[in-house]
Amino acid sequence: MPITTLGIDADDTLWQNEDHYHLTTKAFVGLLEPWVDEDTINGALLETERRNLAVFGYGAKGFTLSMIETALAVTDHRIDGAHVERIIDLGKQLLSHPVELLDGVASTLPGLAARYRLVLITKGDLFHQESKVAASGLAEQFDHVEIVAEKDEPTYRRVLDRLGVDAGEFCMVGNSVRSDVNPVLEIGGYGIHVPYHVTWELERAPSKHGHPRMAEVSAFAEIPGAVDRLAERQAA
Amino acid sequence: MPITTLGIDADDTLWQNEDHYHLTTKAFVGLLEPWVDEDTINGALLETERRNLAVFGYGAKGFTLSMIETALAVTDHRIDGAHVERIIDLGKQLLSHPVELLDGVASTLPGLAARYRLVLITKGDLFHQESKVAASGLAEQFDHVEIVAEKDEPTYRRVLDRLGVDAGEFCMVGNSVRSDVNPVLEIGGYGIHVPYHVTWELERAPSKHGHPRMAEVSAFAEIPGAVDRLAERQAA
Repeated sequence: MPITTLGIDADDTLWQNEDHYHLTTKAFVGLLEPWVDEDTINGALLETERRNLAVFGYGAKGFTLSMIETALAVTDHRIDGAHVERIIDLGKQLLSHPVELLDGVASTLPGLAARYRLVLITKGDLFHQESKVAASGLAEQFDHVEIVAEKDEPTYRRVLDRLGVDAGEFCMVGNSVRSDVNPVLEIGGYGIHVPYHVTWELERAPSKHGHPRMAEVSAFAEIPGAVDRLAERQAA
Repeated sequence: MPITTLGIDADDTLWQNEDHYHLTTKAFVGLLEPWVDEDTINGALLETERRNLAVFGYGAKGFTLSMIETALAVTDHRIDGAHVERIIDLGKQLLSHPVELLDGVASTLPGLAARYRLVLITKGDLFHQESKVAASGLAEQFDHVEIVAEKDEPTYRRVLDRLGVDAGEFCMVGNSVRSDVNPVLEIGGYGIHVPYHVTWELERAPSKHGHPRMAEVSAFAEIPGAVDRLAERQAA
């Protein structure tokens, strides 16, 4: 069965995302410096995010609420209103930053769109993700945009079902082995990992290096060649 | 063309929602009573929500951030950390409350599902809405679930396109004339308004009373009869 459909992740695959979170976290740490040191803040923030994931899900609004909650906890509620307002402003900046495409995306996508059905599959906040898709100018290249709450096996099964696409003709491309590659391999599809220079702690997972339906590339421009190699390997 | 597909709204159509926001707002007002009166708080909160809609979209996480921002503004940043934490807790309760089906929903849906293709169409926070759909036990009755960022004409066109359904065979059911009825009438579909006893200020809009493709019912159980009447009127 040939590969007919490519699923493509958005944050840190098509455009920068984690860097913005990183800068926001840096600014957050700076705000709390009068009260507590950087390591304590980073550890507490990650713990708060992890705990809140089941209530907030992914995305910048939940992250902003987790920042405020962390700030209250690490300062023993001593943080003042003006600082809380600064944290809300940091969250709003995170929700409003311009979309910056990663290297090779704009030049590579049209060739992929000519050969495959392209589906953008991203998780997180519906409103924010839709805004970013619109701002990216890339929407026209995609047959469908799927914004999902979690990228796990049941979600990929549901999306493929809906598209009428068999897992054996589907290849997912993205920077997260946990969300983009491993669950798609598990259901019988292909995965191409395009690592990004930073990975969110809660997004880390072991890579299935050497899996026959998986490839790893170092840049977006290498994706067309990687799909070809996966298809040839399968045919052999 | 017969009516083949019913779109059904979720919040305040299938289950309680606005009542929870109302109770949360009451508790929020109670928290701020040491600083400022109820009318001032309600007015400021609505203004903050309206302003933040373009950044946050709909949903309980954005609402929680708007509550915090309002609390800081109306108290001139004098609100203390413990009170900010109470506001976050109110938001988490709003995100976690059990799903309570409205009268007639559980008994009426199976009959509708036997006669029409049912699509749940709801706007707001993806993660929260998916959680509520799962908790409702109603997912099996629906062919599709569409969670959208805004319920306007382009969104309904996109959803119908994707379902392969003509507007002339589609009827949307919901409690909001602004989001559920008017845009669907505009694109050539049918609308059934099931008013709820409270409507969020930012959801209010004039009703197209007397429109030939619109019906109004007072309870969910009256929907099957209303679809029949709309179809008969069209055939006549």
